[in-house]
Amino acid sequence: MGEFELIRRYFLPLGERQESRSLILGLGDDCAIQRIPAGRDLVFSVDALVEGVHFPRNYRPDYLGWRALAVAASDLAAMGADPECFTLALTLPVVDEQWLKDFSKGLKAASDAFGLELAGGDTTSGPLALSLQVHGSLEQGAGVRRSGARPGDLIAVSGTLGDAGAALGYLTESAPSADMVAVLERYHHPRPRLDLAQSVRQYASAAIDISDGLLADLGHILAASGVGARIDSARLPLSPALMRLKGVDAVNYALRSGDDYELCLCFSPANWERAPESLKSQLTVIGSVEVEPRLYLDGVDCSVEAVPAGFDHFRSES
Amino acid sequence: MGEFELIRRYFLPLGERQESRSLILGLGDDCAIQRIPAGRDLVFSVDALVEGVHFPRNYRPDYLGWRALAVAASDLAAMGADPECFTLALTLPVVDEQWLKDFSKGLKAASDAFGLELAGGDTTSGPLALSLQVHGSLEQGAGVRRSGARPGDLIAVSGTLGDAGAALGYLTESAPSADMVAVLERYHHPRPRLDLAQSVRQYASAAIDISDGLLADLGHILAASGVGARIDSARLPLSPALMRLKGVDAVNYALRSGDDYELCLCFSPANWERAPESLKSQLTVIGSVEVEPRLYLDGVDCSVEAVPAGFDHFRSES
Repeated sequence: MGEFELIRRYFLPLGERQESRSLILGLGDDCAIQRIPAGRDLVFSVDALVEGVHFPRNYRPDYLGWRALAVAASDLAAMGADPECFTLALTLPVVDEQWLKDFSKGLKAASDAFGLELAGGDTTSGPLALSLQVHGSLEQGAGVRRSGARPGDLIAVSGTLGDAGAALGYLTESAPSADMVAVLERYHHPRPRLDLAQSVRQYASAAIDISDGLLADLGHILAASGVGARIDSARLPLSPALMRLKGVDAVNYALRSGDDYELCLCFSPANWERAPESLKSQLTVIGSVEVEPRLYLDGVDCSVEAVPAGFDHFRSES
Repeated sequence: MGEFELIRRYFLPLGERQESRSLILGLGDDCAIQRIPAGRDLVFSVDALVEGVHFPRNYRPDYLGWRALAVAASDLAAMGADPECFTLALTLPVVDEQWLKDFSKGLKAASDAFGLELAGGDTTSGPLALSLQVHGSLEQGAGVRRSGARPGDLIAVSGTLGDAGAALGYLTESAPSADMVAVLERYHHPRPRLDLAQSVRQYASAAIDISDGLLADLGHILAASGVGARIDSARLPLSPALMRLKGVDAVNYALRSGDDYELCLCFSPANWERAPESLKSQLTVIGSVEVEPRLYLDGVDCSVEAVPAGFDHFRSES
């Protein structure tokens, strides 16, 4: 089966959403064409995923399809952008029709769930890898950047942290317990917080999605903003399932593992005050932004871990 | 050297073009933000390149940087779009500083030559591969599609064809002749016809860039347009260097090899009539669009080669 037949059969159905707001020309030409509504900006991000690095070898293709788009879409949520469409560059060692069928099924489920239509792509032969670029939009000037944190801001995270990290220990478990299944589901089917995007752009001063772990990703905010922070591990939101798992250091996973794709957000006290309960009920405050450019965890300086290259180093970038 | 340091050192300089018209936020945040001017559409295309498939193993990294962006930018030219910016997903087996330095040098040269600013990216470890997405813009409704060819249209190609295909035979030549050097240069440093983009959208009824070979790419236009064509191999534009190379079937390369990244264009007789000499002088008419959905080369039906899946098959797509 050639590249064109392959695209036709498995990927064309992902480019046919009825409710598409902005795609003028989708799959099948030299380029796709997207119309950004007047007064709005295009927001975009690219993520590459390689077998054996970003997902296990022989990973279930339907899970991969979902995960790949979820990982990419999470960056839109962190910017406070509304989802529009995406492109997929897919490199496959062999054309395995069952694999493609399953992969496209998972990708389609995520495409529907996140409101992201397939706009274009490229399929080639080679070691299994994917590169996805997601497109969103938001009102001009409304994008929430990493650099907006100010001393006195509250630091909050969405949902619960650490589940997906703990799940990595159970990927090959033949008879997983209910709690293992619960955390595995967080790994296999992460749900980017696009539901919070509108609130993020209305209230947050800075935002990032937690893909590398809370300490590392908060570190990016602090470095970009030229500030520091104090956070309290006792306040980290942990799922009941994670807390019940035996022999698992839940706090460590919550601090240091990625893959949950929750958001880390900063709010000025005034904005936090006026934010609706419907938002606050999905967030947990874990600390505050400080003037001194260091990150203190339970009073202990862990700046070196959070920002390996150093705060000053990063600040010189901006 | 970590991912952030790597990006900072070698890729930030590619995101700092003074003349950027549309990039509001570039490298270093969760997403990039682009503002499309009122009355214009975003045009985009993604291309994946894998070592050993799209470029030779141990290929010179500065050549690779140029080639990768040229290949991607060529799709913008085929749509008649003006270049804006691009993203790069780069997968590297090891962090080799000299390789990165050379690669980013070639990429920067292409970025400057084509007017494409680096807007975002992702670097990961894995087998050497790249995925580039180029962004352009054009007036709303002005995009030239593959499906616009009509019976009676003239078929023309830009520049000369076959050089890059012939060059593949000389990649490891230790003492190449001047003619070999000339065709090798076409392979190593293809120049996407962005210079023709404005003319393309003003005058062409259909367009495609020649990446798979003239027969295959013209086949895409014919299939998408539901038409056929007659072309004449004696009219194919061939470079003096290619014609002088001994033991080389120049016409075969011109018909069947990609990698030159010239354009194949269709023009209504009226539009061809009013097109300026400055455009026509860069094009060669090689045939005409016909009602019967077959492709005749020198009077011989080669439809099966041009459109392997068949014309009817393709037409059912649109």
